[in-house]
Amino acid sequence: MAVFTEPPGTPVLELDTPALVMDIANVEANIARMASFLAGTGCKLRPHVKTHKTAILAHKQLAAGAIGLTCAKLGEAEMLVAGGIHDLLIANEIIGPAKIARLVALAHHADVMVAVDAPDNVAALGAAATAAGVTIRVLVDVNVGQNRCGVEPYEPALRLARQVAETRGLRLCGVMGYEGHLMFVPDREEKVRQARESMRLLTETAELLRRKGLEASIVSGGGTGTFDITGAYPGVTELQAGSYITMDARYRDLGLPFACALTVLASVVSRPRPNRVILDVGMKAISHEFGLPHVLDVPGARVTKLSEEHATVELDDPSVPLTPGDKLFLLPTHGDTTINLHDRYFVVRDGVLETVWDIAGRGKSR
Amino acid sequence: MAVFTEPPGTPVLELDTPALVMDIANVEANIARMASFLAGTGCKLRPHVKTHKTAILAHKQLAAGAIGLTCAKLGEAEMLVAGGIHDLLIANEIIGPAKIARLVALAHHADVMVAVDAPDNVAALGAAATAAGVTIRVLVDVNVGQNRCGVEPYEPALRLARQVAETRGLRLCGVMGYEGHLMFVPDREEKVRQARESMRLLTETAELLRRKGLEASIVSGGGTGTFDITGAYPGVTELQAGSYITMDARYRDLGLPFACALTVLASVVSRPRPNRVILDVGMKAISHEFGLPHVLDVPGARVTKLSEEHATVELDDPSVPLTPGDKLFLLPTHGDTTINLHDRYFVVRDGVLETVWDIAGRGKSR
Repeated sequence: MAVFTEPPGTPVLELDTPALVMDIANVEANIARMASFLAGTGCKLRPHVKTHKTAILAHKQLAAGAIGLTCAKLGEAEMLVAGGIHDLLIANEIIGPAKIARLVALAHHADVMVAVDAPDNVAALGAAATAAGVTIRVLVDVNVGQNRCGVEPYEPALRLARQVAETRGLRLCGVMGYEGHLMFVPDREEKVRQARESMRLLTETAELLRRKGLEASIVSGGGTGTFDITGAYPGVTELQAGSYITMDARYRDLGLPFACALTVLASVVSRPRPNRVILDVGMKAISHEFGLPHVLDVPGARVTKLSEEHATVELDDPSVPLTPGDKLFLLPTHGDTTINLHDRYFVVRDGVLETVWDIAGRGKSR
Repeated sequence: MAVFTEPPGTPVLELDTPALVMDIANVEANIARMASFLAGTGCKLRPHVKTHKTAILAHKQLAAGAIGLTCAKLGEAEMLVAGGIHDLLIANEIIGPAKIARLVALAHHADVMVAVDAPDNVAALGAAATAAGVTIRVLVDVNVGQNRCGVEPYEPALRLARQVAETRGLRLCGVMGYEGHLMFVPDREEKVRQARESMRLLTETAELLRRKGLEASIVSGGGTGTFDITGAYPGVTELQAGSYITMDARYRDLGLPFACALTVLASVVSRPRPNRVILDVGMKAISHEFGLPHVLDVPGARVTKLSEEHATVELDDPSVPLTPGDKLFLLPTHGDTTINLHDRYFVVRDGVLETVWDIAGRGKSR
């Protein structure tokens, strides 16, 4: 279906709304800052595409030194391969014949790596890869405290790693462990302590594998909330951080050295009373599981309610001159899920639309 | 980008996951039941497309007697017109030159009706319609207690209605008021009392317009949670209910006479301990602003956490035989926002895939 988008050169405030606005200068600065931080460590960046879901941004990350991309879903990996990306980690278990068939198909066109945490899955992956004549790289997924997927560290991980190493069609590369439960630990010292403990489990498990003669050259973990702890931890070789590229209000509140690059431009559609305006953006265009979005640039204005297609904004100052048609920027509290609601980025530099990028990975949850 | 979907005839449990599964027999029964209820009233159905976002389902509603469709967004209306639907209410204010230009363009191809709550907007709509040589039908949006958009009942509504009637290019048709704040009032008697009070404000405002010689043949309101109250209220001519077609856990818990027709099929991807399984469905494929999704058909299993691409399910009975690759149905607590995460329905009858429908209105928040 035809979509109306404004041409390059349009001032951002002349964009129709809702518009997912990406400040590309801030994105570029975030990419450079992460590269610069990791240059001083033994750790490489394999950024997570689940945040931006777009091959062009993945290429920019590679150009700045990233060694490959991390994906949550097979569909995201397919999108990246279609966009010319070759070295991919799908940091989840790929389960079932339909997905395994797609995985081995993808392995004809890219160098893919997957996580495993169960013997049956290892056997199924190996059989499919062997039948297709491809090799799938494998990391053993280790539970480092998040208590989601993953085998327990040490012996259980070793057992599974040994099976991987002995399975035709698979190539054991090491371990991964995601300390996702620690991203927002409020006390910095406590976060450092816990993240190091998680990475101790992971790196010691890798060391155990090596002692037993198994390959563990890759030790992968970390997110934006722990980038400087996990990324600097001795023995961690790859960092999976994703959100740093766009940031959001929740990560901003951690005081990280990255700039917010993502807003949703909204229009006032009604001003039913002096201290209230209604915007044309609701939960179908901005997520709120981590809190209501923030209103930028209007002191004393705050979102008090989101319905499906509206936001209610209360104004401390009823003399603020906002009338229907006026536009406001909302800062999402969660970038990843907000991006996943939109079909395109309106890419802005210095307040002017530079280009529009399709979010090809949006909705690729399969 | 190519998408892998299974062919018609595939058993539902052989669909890859996540899959948004629509039980089409339940959808058909819901359409018939709503038509049957309204046949006994003076009220017609103008169902809301914001739930299903799909022209083919809109046509089924029209075939069962609906007089047109209701939309939240201009982009939804454009999608429906492209799908051959002619009589449309956009039950929101259409603000700003970009959207008004699209609205008058749409009026060349369909009979559109919009809501207004401000004089400047009425003037802008009239000028654009006149310049384009089209007529836009207009309802005055009346605040019946939701406190979102809308003018106050009686005199304020009358003043705006008079302006609409006097504006070239516009045709005043009546009033609308959405008692959205009452859909989930738990006490039935209290809900009946409050919904009737809302509709009293609306119908008396319509009556005031008529007494003053203004057109008010359309009085539009109601949602799925008040369908039998608002739909039976004397003087209400059109019901805007949308969610009845698919339902969800929250509406189901109201005891409405409609069947749940929407689930998300998920796969177990890990069983890290006997009383826990991890599914491949998270908040990017099922919404949770109204509560975590429900696990169907597995007694004692409940979702305890959603992350972006995973659900954690705790099992009361650790002997439940669920292993990676096994599939579960999740019932969303909010259908509208869950549908808005997906690109297609997997349409199932008697447990077998009948067809796949693109959700063309997904993400049409502009």
